[in-house]
Amino acid sequence: MTDKDCLFCKIIDGQIPSHKVYENDLVLAFLDIFPLSYGHTIVIPKKHYYNFLDMPEDDMGNYFKELKKISLLIKEKLKIDGFNIVQNNFPAAGQVIPHLHFHIIPRMKGDGPLRMIPGKVQAKEDDLRKIIKKIKD
Amino acid sequence: MTDKDCLFCKIIDGQIPSHKVYENDLVLAFLDIFPLSYGHTIVIPKKHYYNFLDMPEDDMGNYFKELKKISLLIKEKLKIDGFNIVQNNFPAAGQVIPHLHFHIIPRMKGDGPLRMIPGKVQAKEDDLRKIIKKIKD
Repeated sequence: MTDKDCLFCKIIDGQIPSHKVYENDLVLAFLDIFPLSYGHTIVIPKKHYYNFLDMPEDDMGNYFKELKKISLLIKEKLKIDGFNIVQNNFPAAGQVIPHLHFHIIPRMKGDGPLRMIPGKVQAKEDDLRKIIKKIKD
Repeated sequence: MTDKDCLFCKIIDGQIPSHKVYENDLVLAFLDIFPLSYGHTIVIPKKHYYNFLDMPEDDMGNYFKELKKISLLIKEKLKIDGFNIVQNNFPAAGQVIPHLHFHIIPRMKGDGPLRMIPGKVQAKEDDLRKIIKKIKD
């Protein structure tokens, strides 16, 4: 079910640490360390699928219920005004990690158009910890 | 089920014309007339829901199967290298039309990062017709 060379499988296995937003048997949600906005979260299935086209159709209902649950959690706890769901398929679309993932990108009023180019600024550990604390409280 | 003031409900009802990519009882897919890329398609449920948080959980499996089917159709017929799925929730996230919709944004190798600002250039009718012809063939 996991791919030994996949970064996200290593995060699921705990080989690589992450700032966990939510976890259950089916999915893991964690903060993007190159955030496009405050609270930018990545949601992944625990099973290794390459991208959206490889997600088994019979499991889709369950996965998207989780995506909704996590979206609501972030919306309520971080008091955001809106959010974008973005999911990239194949390298031409900017897919870097070969493991299906959904971006939940929180937005506040007046943010303007979504900038998909993060400028590659890595978040500070302490800032990420503070966000998780807000979500867990 | 429909909202009389909603632009997308009017497209579903046929009051406003659209370049249809795919249609069945559950969903309608049509070309965005302000495309971010060649073949940019909008997928909407025929029932009027405001955004992702209002989609009934029990229907999610069926809706996302359709989204996959339409993604595959576009990928095969337009011979694209990849695609982004983008879905905006609330005005702060750029949601303009108050009817749940998913963007399928085709991408080709070398396109570079997704630009979410289309520059508001409306597509030419004839170009849209040619795309539909490719998809229907």
